[in-house]
Amino acid sequence: MNIVTKVKNFTNPLYLESGRILEPYEITYETYGKLNRKKDNVIVITHALTGNHHASGRYEDEAKAGWWDGLIGDNKVIDTKKYFVICATVLGSPRGSTCAISTMYPTDKLYRFKFPVITIRDMVKAQKILFNKLGIYKVKAIIGGSMGGMQALQFAVDFPNFAESIIPLAATHATTPWTIAFNKVTIESILNDDDFKDGYYDPKDIAENGLKGLAIGRMAGHISFLSKDSMDLKFGRDYVETDGLYELFGRFQVERYLDYNGYSFPKWFDPLSYLYLIKAINIFDLSRGYDSFEDALERIESKLYLIGFKKDFLFFPEEMRKIHQTMQKTSKKDLVSYYEVDSNYGHDAFLVEIDKFSSYIKDILDGKI
Amino acid sequence: MNIVTKVKNFTNPLYLESGRILEPYEITYETYGKLNRKKDNVIVITHALTGNHHASGRYEDEAKAGWWDGLIGDNKVIDTKKYFVICATVLGSPRGSTCAISTMYPTDKLYRFKFPVITIRDMVKAQKILFNKLGIYKVKAIIGGSMGGMQALQFAVDFPNFAESIIPLAATHATTPWTIAFNKVTIESILNDDDFKDGYYDPKDIAENGLKGLAIGRMAGHISFLSKDSMDLKFGRDYVETDGLYELFGRFQVERYLDYNGYSFPKWFDPLSYLYLIKAINIFDLSRGYDSFEDALERIESKLYLIGFKKDFLFFPEEMRKIHQTMQKTSKKDLVSYYEVDSNYGHDAFLVEIDKFSSYIKDILDGKI
Repeated sequence: MNIVTKVKNFTNPLYLESGRILEPYEITYETYGKLNRKKDNVIVITHALTGNHHASGRYEDEAKAGWWDGLIGDNKVIDTKKYFVICATVLGSPRGSTCAISTMYPTDKLYRFKFPVITIRDMVKAQKILFNKLGIYKVKAIIGGSMGGMQALQFAVDFPNFAESIIPLAATHATTPWTIAFNKVTIESILNDDDFKDGYYDPKDIAENGLKGLAIGRMAGHISFLSKDSMDLKFGRDYVETDGLYELFGRFQVERYLDYNGYSFPKWFDPLSYLYLIKAINIFDLSRGYDSFEDALERIESKLYLIGFKKDFLFFPEEMRKIHQTMQKTSKKDLVSYYEVDSNYGHDAFLVEIDKFSSYIKDILDGKI
Repeated sequence: MNIVTKVKNFTNPLYLESGRILEPYEITYETYGKLNRKKDNVIVITHALTGNHHASGRYEDEAKAGWWDGLIGDNKVIDTKKYFVICATVLGSPRGSTCAISTMYPTDKLYRFKFPVITIRDMVKAQKILFNKLGIYKVKAIIGGSMGGMQALQFAVDFPNFAESIIPLAATHATTPWTIAFNKVTIESILNDDDFKDGYYDPKDIAENGLKGLAIGRMAGHISFLSKDSMDLKFGRDYVETDGLYELFGRFQVERYLDYNGYSFPKWFDPLSYLYLIKAINIFDLSRGYDSFEDALERIESKLYLIGFKKDFLFFPEEMRKIHQTMQKTSKKDLVSYYEVDSNYGHDAFLVEIDKFSSYIKDILDGKI
């Protein structure tokens, strides 16, 4: 059974990478399975941009199960009969933790643009404090895709003795201009939406339909989550409807897909927080604070299992391969392996083509690799 | 010297592929060099989405020369001392020909959304009528990239005896959902801009700064015109400016590039016409009207020289290769060749890396290939 807990941290001010201090802050996390007496059965799951603590199981009022339900659960690959699994909503996300539309203590106003810049390192730090609080000082594995993979990598570098294994999927060591460019479309689209009111919108006013600017930005995002090949397979040049006249006036399947996914998204995601999260992704660079990328990797003590996806058009497999290659140049070369998933699906494969890498993760957890 | 001519066609109503009739319509074209007595030195240049008739040379009031000036001119590869070169602004483009913000004869109102859907085939038909009017019934070559390449291909299929050689660059035989998806972001971004007023904006009102919605859509376009690799080389993770504090607050080079190219674009391009032109690209399918793609290609009598670009992320080289492969299955297999340009630049390479394919085009024109 899932247990959801909200922790409010008044005792420890959080020193952020920017130099700012966040106090108090709140983190929501969900756990699955039981912590054993030796506390050596913990697996940490780190979520992507729009994910949250609810990674597995389905609540009564939910249409869909948690975002990685295919992987996590009783008798599944990440077996909750065996492991104690924790997933926390990252700092900055509106889906459970303190974010830009949280109340700015001690006032009753929302932070909005007064919220500090949050980095992947900050997200990791807040989670580490949470784990300390729970008396967990060592975990079996940290597993996450996309922004979750960035967190896993940052855990590996910042807390070398914390995890036995680090399993980042579909991620990168430093966000490329290609990804920053997609995020730029979203940033401009949000900022230029009059209903955004320069960040001073009333969340109630946009609650029903959400912010259109975010919808359009999200469409650009969805292009990067798929790939040319996956779109060819999924949509082709098929029409949803057409009046039959030379097919000139129809609506393409891919257009319907983007309409649906674009316009439904802002109904459940806050635009200001989205800006903060894509900022965290844009400025992610694993070598920041170290002399070089190699120096950062040199710190790693965990086993590092990198999983790339052949047709990932957001964080290209060559980016994962580069981490692998750079690790080879360090004294830690025996700690790293790279597995490339043969998939046409694009970036989203880490969420939808679980069957293609689940046995690899099982082998890692079973100590076979 | 360039000669610019505007032709108003009152005599021939234009029957469009949609079944609609356009009457009258206007086409602006520019010519370079002299038509010889035998009229056998004509080269037709077809332009891309935002191009126009002004392909070469620089007018006194211009900062930049025509869009393919590197290729066309006296003693250049497309040598205007030798050839008579014609480039016409396509039907539907606001940069010289009849388009959605033209006056709807006999009223004094603008067409706006009453303008008919224009297809690549329609653009080609209008140009063919123009050439007939000029007494040109046979040309040496038709050369164009991107949407210009689509026109070249359509010429090859629709008018098999018109051109000796067809040279399409960085194009496709049928637009893929990947490209349609990028265009979708632009469509939604324009339609949702309040200043677009559902197409009833006063062009004067948006003349100074242009429509923001078009700017944002154009940013998405620019992503597809480059490539992951070209962005890595061109921008990396470099900042334009930063306050130095952990590099958390800087603006990335790639963001400046998109700001500049995005926001300057709507100042010189009309949003309604942009919608019509990307529609023409979306619905382009060389096999429409024929039983199959092979059947369409079977009609070709010209020599077909396909030029693809290795890292084209809009019209991928495999799309050009597919035309080549499909031609091999027809009785016209001896007419086709394929040349792949080794470039990291992405789609824009056909405009900016002319040196990489100009000698190939010269060899074609000189009859060496």
